[in-house]
Amino acid sequence: MPNPTAAMIVIGDEILSGRTRDANMHHLAGELATAGIDLKEVRVVSDDPSAITDATRALSETYTHVFTSGGIGPTHDDITADCIAAAFNAHIDVRDDARAILEEYYQRTGTELNEARLRMARIPDGASLIDNPVSAAPGFKLENVHVMAGVPTIFQAMVASVLPTLTGGAPLLSQTLRINRGEGDIAGPLADLASEFSDLSIGSYPFSQGGIFGAHIVIRGHDGAMLDAAMTKLSAMFSE
Amino acid sequence: MPNPTAAMIVIGDEILSGRTRDANMHHLAGELATAGIDLKEVRVVSDDPSAITDATRALSETYTHVFTSGGIGPTHDDITADCIAAAFNAHIDVRDDARAILEEYYQRTGTELNEARLRMARIPDGASLIDNPVSAAPGFKLENVHVMAGVPTIFQAMVASVLPTLTGGAPLLSQTLRINRGEGDIAGPLADLASEFSDLSIGSYPFSQGGIFGAHIVIRGHDGAMLDAAMTKLSAMFSE
Repeated sequence: MPNPTAAMIVIGDEILSGRTRDANMHHLAGELATAGIDLKEVRVVSDDPSAITDATRALSETYTHVFTSGGIGPTHDDITADCIAAAFNAHIDVRDDARAILEEYYQRTGTELNEARLRMARIPDGASLIDNPVSAAPGFKLENVHVMAGVPTIFQAMVASVLPTLTGGAPLLSQTLRINRGEGDIAGPLADLASEFSDLSIGSYPFSQGGIFGAHIVIRGHDGAMLDAAMTKLSAMFSE
Repeated sequence: MPNPTAAMIVIGDEILSGRTRDANMHHLAGELATAGIDLKEVRVVSDDPSAITDATRALSETYTHVFTSGGIGPTHDDITADCIAAAFNAHIDVRDDARAILEEYYQRTGTELNEARLRMARIPDGASLIDNPVSAAPGFKLENVHVMAGVPTIFQAMVASVLPTLTGGAPLLSQTLRINRGEGDIAGPLADLASEFSDLSIGSYPFSQGGIFGAHIVIRGHDGAMLDAAMTKLSAMFSE
């Protein structure tokens, strides 16, 4: 059975403007590979309602799971929850279960649960909450879309609580061989190997380091024995 | 006049699998902001022909410029050039001008221009070449799509040669204020400021550092005087 698939939506003018380097994509990619869920596409979109709803609809229809990052805080630019609700024509308002979580947290920390903070309890009807062990305000899952915070520590904690609830497939395994020869020299035999092992993905990533041109050959797949066989053959081809 | 818009396509199983952290997106985002071209969307897609052609068609129709990164080397997994040609129904084969560049370079470096390396001279009809000062193999521009290498040094060199050929608008300016108070405390007045300066984008990016909760408020826009006015008002609001 093929693995379930996934896509990610990164909501962030701060990334598109070049101010911030995204960290959540790389984290999620690694976690999904281990869980046996194949990440097929990532879209970084701006803080614009139609950009967010359009991407949500398109990716939700195409992939098994969708994960979003960013835009669920208390400020005016946090519009993700409303956009996800709109994408599925779901009603959204402050929900009692989310409000109770915030009330408990802010009472304990001696902070006022004002109108702005209460926005973080806006959860679409029909969504289930995602636990936020860092700062309480929950994420949520609506249909197949997991809506999570953009702050990396919170994003990572939410991913950790969500992944065990999803049925994964075989983990994506990979083996890498470094070859100190230019890609142009190894491309022919490498293409033959890729044809022979067509169930594996064989990628070539060139580098130049201290005047040496070379490539990292990465073999990826879900079948460990097949991976071993391909790597043995690859090593034999290019033993120096 | 509004600024021209742009999108980027990162071609890369190696990023989706979590093996590599993309560096080109952040570089391009910064360069485009300076050039006054508004980066609106980035898609990371897998090394799959239909994923690449679909993204190319969709983004090419929507934005002024499209930039791609990755998949134009000599190995079997380098399929970008053929996919871009397919997206525009353009014929593609080894082209004499590109072949001449490779012949000159490989002759000079004493390397055989074999069949694999010759694949890098596959350029769609109607495309113009993009100079590669690092390793000769050119990128190209077809319609409004700029096809560039994934190796960061080469990608950056290609961006540097392409950007001066594009008409930009007003650079995206930004000013940042660090506020050592939780987002929930500042959200109300911040929303009022965002309404008052609706031509600017005002983003709030929370952090927690050594037990202090705070936010970086980033004001972005193309009008320097307006930016100054908003920042003056913001600073006055939250002077401690």
